[in-house]
Amino acid sequence: MKRSERVSAIVKILSDSPNQSYSLGTFCQMFGAAKSSISEDLQAARNLLEKMELGYIETTSGAGGGVRFIPSISDKVFLELQMDLCEKLKEPARQLAGGFLYTSDIMFNARLMKKVAHAFARKFQDTGADYVVTIETKGIAVATMVSDLLNIPLVVIRRESKISEGSTVSINYFSGSSDRVQKMSIAKRAVEPGSRALIIDDFMRAGGSVKGIADILTEFDVEIVGTGLIIVTTEPERKTIPEYSALLYLAGIDPEKKELKVFPNIQFF
Amino acid sequence: MKRSERVSAIVKILSDSPNQSYSLGTFCQMFGAAKSSISEDLQAARNLLEKMELGYIETTSGAGGGVRFIPSISDKVFLELQMDLCEKLKEPARQLAGGFLYTSDIMFNARLMKKVAHAFARKFQDTGADYVVTIETKGIAVATMVSDLLNIPLVVIRRESKISEGSTVSINYFSGSSDRVQKMSIAKRAVEPGSRALIIDDFMRAGGSVKGIADILTEFDVEIVGTGLIIVTTEPERKTIPEYSALLYLAGIDPEKKELKVFPNIQFF
Repeated sequence: MKRSERVSAIVKILSDSPNQSYSLGTFCQMFGAAKSSISEDLQAARNLLEKMELGYIETTSGAGGGVRFIPSISDKVFLELQMDLCEKLKEPARQLAGGFLYTSDIMFNARLMKKVAHAFARKFQDTGADYVVTIETKGIAVATMVSDLLNIPLVVIRRESKISEGSTVSINYFSGSSDRVQKMSIAKRAVEPGSRALIIDDFMRAGGSVKGIADILTEFDVEIVGTGLIIVTTEPERKTIPEYSALLYLAGIDPEKKELKVFPNIQFF
Repeated sequence: MKRSERVSAIVKILSDSPNQSYSLGTFCQMFGAAKSSISEDLQAARNLLEKMELGYIETTSGAGGGVRFIPSISDKVFLELQMDLCEKLKEPARQLAGGFLYTSDIMFNARLMKKVAHAFARKFQDTGADYVVTIETKGIAVATMVSDLLNIPLVVIRRESKISEGSTVSINYFSGSSDRVQKMSIAKRAVEPGSRALIIDDFMRAGGSVKGIADILTEFDVEIVGTGLIIVTTEPERKTIPEYSALLYLAGIDPEKKELKVFPNIQFF
């Protein structure tokens, strides 16, 4: 392979497997090239990705060292993403009876959720999270993408305990959104005591279900190192969890214009 | 940007958004280069991706024409993936009481599901599907990845009708796995009458839930153009749906060795 081909190949391989470490030797063998050549290729790949504001190639030296791609998103693209999401959410046809909002098509828009996941990955890259944790159902697509970008497992908390989950731990919690007590259940084998979790979900009102996730993880002595949400309502102001990062804030519906009041969190990062 | 940088950038941009069409003009503007140069860059990018067996760059001419990346997976990597999945599934600790198998960590392993999704994308690329459809919960990660690779929306059928789904259509179906009648529900606005759906799910025994998905989609006059499953049991031999593509076949547990009998479908493609 020629130099230009090697650089493209390295960009492709590293960015297809974000946060996965490759030794220099892997590339030397792959391309039949000397370490010095591969180092120059990596420098070219690094420069390009930084110029495009798509992320970083990080090199760690020593035994077990290697190179890995750390995905990111530029401030500009992030703001465009926030505005795009606000626009979509404001579409009048999304407003359902009872003040509910139809968001399933957005939350299961894989391409869009991949972008959102880049924002969460940038935000939570250095938290040392061992898992991404979400609760079924609408946060699963974005949580899957975050899990891929950070290269850590995804744990999905279920609403009911399933036989196929093996032995489980369940809790009941009060959900303000549905105004009733709900159940959540996690497979015992899904998490390791003493590990760290990053919670990702699509929507939060008072925080009942996120608090439930935190509570159930506490049973396993798991530390919450971050909580990322796509939409958080401004009311109630007081949430049941102390810290979280919202992409967007939702302030209800303007009673005159019937327009949704939703705006970007400009302090996300 | 230099030629080598442009080629890497094009590889990155196209493969980050598979099946999304870009006009030549977009790249000309982005890099401040002439059409003839960009055409050469694209040829270099095309050669590289084909050499790496990662997919194809397709050019369509005429108004609305452009270039797009069609992701694929080589026969060799696909076979390795199948063997890897079989190995993982054979781990003795997965065997639960009642003949159930713990697979949640596999089905929510985003990196692994991205690979599986490449196999489904290769298989179903030319079906003309308008949506990927799955039913909650364990197929959502792989379905999300397929939806991203084919650049079509994902529709997730729910077990219960939720207020936030708006007006829904529900059916009851018999699930052999749980040996009881279950319900599934789809938002009316989620699918367009007369469109085409690709069903993706993690597991099929007799086919009750996949048949349910097909039935509920038929209510909307939606045609099923493909059905992809990760694991299909060999028993019962007669399934309730006529056609499907399984990555792996599961033939139960060897009563002597206590080992799971699972093997790759060598006729997948």
